[in-house]
Amino acid sequence: MARASKREQIAQAALEQFHSRGFHATGINDITAAAGAPKGSFYNHFSSKEESALEALSRYADGLRFDILVTPGRPALDRLRAHFEFLGRMMFDSGFARGCLVGNFGAEVADHNATIRAAVRQSFDQWAGLIGQVLAEAREAGELDAGLDVDEAARFVLSAWEGTLLVARADKTSAPFDSFFHMVFGVVLR
Amino acid sequence: MARASKREQIAQAALEQFHSRGFHATGINDITAAAGAPKGSFYNHFSSKEESALEALSRYADGLRFDILVTPGRPALDRLRAHFEFLGRMMFDSGFARGCLVGNFGAEVADHNATIRAAVRQSFDQWAGLIGQVLAEAREAGELDAGLDVDEAARFVLSAWEGTLLVARADKTSAPFDSFFHMVFGVVLR
Repeated sequence: MARASKREQIAQAALEQFHSRGFHATGINDITAAAGAPKGSFYNHFSSKEESALEALSRYADGLRFDILVTPGRPALDRLRAHFEFLGRMMFDSGFARGCLVGNFGAEVADHNATIRAAVRQSFDQWAGLIGQVLAEAREAGELDAGLDVDEAARFVLSAWEGTLLVARADKTSAPFDSFFHMVFGVVLR
Repeated sequence: MARASKREQIAQAALEQFHSRGFHATGINDITAAAGAPKGSFYNHFSSKEESALEALSRYADGLRFDILVTPGRPALDRLRAHFEFLGRMMFDSGFARGCLVGNFGAEVADHNATIRAAVRQSFDQWAGLIGQVLAEAREAGELDAGLDVDEAARFVLSAWEGTLLVARADKTSAPFDSFFHMVFGVVLR
C-alpha cells in the first residue's frame, strides 16, 4: 500500500517536472525530490526516465478533457470551443507557462527517441480524430460549410492550438489566444 | 583573421547543434567538437551558452527568407505561399526533423530564461508583423475579405505554422503541411 502510494507520488511528480522543466532539464533527482522520495526509489517503480515520461504523457492526455468534446447535450461547435477554453484557462492560470506536454515532447524529444515520438504521434492522432468527429457532427447539423474537409480542418485546428500555446509562452499575454478563438470560430469554422 | 574564422565556425556549429539537439541537450563540448575547435576556445568568443543561443537565434531568423514576403513583383498571397513553401522544403529535406528554432526555444527555454524569451518574442513579433503587412496588401488588392482583421490573421497563421512543424516532427509525414496549405490558402485567406 505504501509502495503503491509512493509510485503514485513519483509518477505525478514526474508529470509536473517534465511539464514545467522539459525532458532534458528534468533529472531523476528533480523527480524524487519533488515526490519527497529517496533518489534510488525511482528505479523501484520505473526502469528509466523514458518510461516515466511515457506515463507522464499518458497522465497528461487524461487531463485534456476529451470528454468535453464528446459529451452530448449542446451543439458540436460549442463543445469544441468549451474544450479549448478549458485548456486556455490552464494556460492563463500558469502565467502562460508550461504549454502542452504533448507538444513540448514533440518539440524537444520526438526527433531523438522513437518510443516517445510514437506516443506523441498517437496523442495527436487521437486528439485530431476526436476533433474531426465533432466537426463532422457540426457539418451534418449544418453548422459548417458542407464542403469543409473535416479531417484536414481538425488537424489544422489542433496544429494552430499547439502553435498558439508555443507563441503565448514567449508572449506571456492572451493575444495569441484571442487570435486563435476569433480566427477558428469566426473564420475557419463557418 | 584565423580568430574571426574560428568564431564563425563556432557560431555556425552552435546554430546547428541547438537546432538539431535542442538547448538543454547541447553542451559546449558538442558545439566545439562540431566546429573542430578545442573546448576552451568557446569562451574566447562567447561569454556563455546563452549568448551563443541568442546569436544562433539571430542567424536562424536571417535564414527565414523574410525577403520573399516583401519583394514586390507578384501578388501578396503568392509571396506568402512561397515563403511557407520555402520553409516547408527545409522540413522535407531534414526528414521532418529539427522544426523551427524560434519555436523550439519558445517551447524549451522561454519559461526559464527571460533574455531568450525576449528574443523569441521579438522574432515572432517581427515575423507576424511582416505577414500582417502582406495580408494588408492582399486585402487592399481585393485578394481578401475586406472585413478580415489582418493582424489577428497574421498571428494566427504564424501560430498555425509553428504548430504544423511541431506536429510534423511527431508525424514524419507531409500530412500536417497539406492541411496547413489547404486550410490557410483555401479557407482562412479568402
